[in-house]
Amino acid sequence: MFSPAIQKLIEERSGSFLIPASKIAFVEESNPLYHAFLILTKVKYAKIPVLNQQSQLVGLVSLAMITDKMLDNDDISVEALSKYQVKDVMQTDFPKVNFTDAELETQLHLLVDNNFIPIVDDDDVFQGMITRREWFKAFNYLAHTFDDHYMVIKKNQILRLEANDE
Amino acid sequence: MFSPAIQKLIEERSGSFLIPASKIAFVEESNPLYHAFLILTKVKYAKIPVLNQQSQLVGLVSLAMITDKMLDNDDISVEALSKYQVKDVMQTDFPKVNFTDAELETQLHLLVDNNFIPIVDDDDVFQGMITRREWFKAFNYLAHTFDDHYMVIKKNQILRLEANDE
Repeated sequence: MFSPAIQKLIEERSGSFLIPASKIAFVEESNPLYHAFLILTKVKYAKIPVLNQQSQLVGLVSLAMITDKMLDNDDISVEALSKYQVKDVMQTDFPKVNFTDAELETQLHLLVDNNFIPIVDDDDVFQGMITRREWFKAFNYLAHTFDDHYMVIKKNQILRLEANDE
Repeated sequence: MFSPAIQKLIEERSGSFLIPASKIAFVEESNPLYHAFLILTKVKYAKIPVLNQQSQLVGLVSLAMITDKMLDNDDISVEALSKYQVKDVMQTDFPKVNFTDAELETQLHLLVDNNFIPIVDDDDVFQGMITRREWFKAFNYLAHTFDDHYMVIKKNQILRLEANDE
C-alpha cells in the first residue's frame, strides 16, 4: 500500500506537476524531419510530443530517432531530412495517461522507466506532461519536512515495548 | 533536516544507485563529431560522458550539441561532423561528485536539475553515474513499504492529545 502520510505530503506539491501543453514544444506528424531536427536541436527536452492535425497525441520523437534515419551504410547524409516525415520515425508505443487517472502511485510507477508522462484528455488531445523533475522537487520537500509533520516510531521498537509490558 | 526514517529506507536501496563506468557508453574529447553522432544515435542515453586519454571526466555531450554545429544559416550540413571534435561542442559546466561525498541529500538535490550525476574519484577519473531511474525505484520502495517499518502519527494529533490531558 502507498503510505498515506507520504501520499499526503506529495499531494501538497502535486498541483504543479502538470506542465501545460502551451509551454511544451511539439511537432506535427506530417512535418518533414528537418523541421523536427531544428526544434530538437534548440529545445532542452530530449524527446518531444508529436501531434496530428486534431492536436491528438500520436507519438514521441527524439533526435536519435531522426539521426538514425540519416545513417546510410557507413555514411551520414542529410537527404533523409527532407525525404521523410516525423511519422516515419516517431515512437508510437509509449504510456500516456488521462489526467483524471493520473494517480500519484501510477505516476511514480511510470516514471521509473520514462523521463516524463504525456497527459491526454478523453479524446486523446494533448494536455501537457508530468516530469521527473517536478517529482524530485516534491521528494526534496518530503524528505526535508516529513519529521515536521509526523512523529515516526520504528515498529520493532513498539513490539519491544509491548514485550516489556508483559 | 533530512528525515532519518526516509534516509534509512532509501539507504537500503542505495547500494545499487551507482551504475559503473564499465556499463556506460562514452566518447573521448578528441573523437571527431561523427563518432559521437553514431554512438549517441545508438545508445539509450540522451547525454553521455566525455573522457580524456587519462579516463578523466572532462565533459558531457548530447546529440543536440552536435546537431547545433551542423546548422549553417538555414542549411543543415554534415561537414561539421568531420571538421570538429567532441571537445569543440561538449558541455564543460556540470556537477560531478566524488563518490565518498555523494550523500543521499546531495544526490536528491542535484537530481532535480540533472538526469544523472557523474561520479569521479580523487583524480577526476570517471567511475560511473547515479541516475534518476534508480532513485525512482527507491522512491517506489519507500512509498510502498514505509508503513510496514514505521508507525506514523500526525504531530497536531499529538498536540491535541496533550491538550486533552491538561
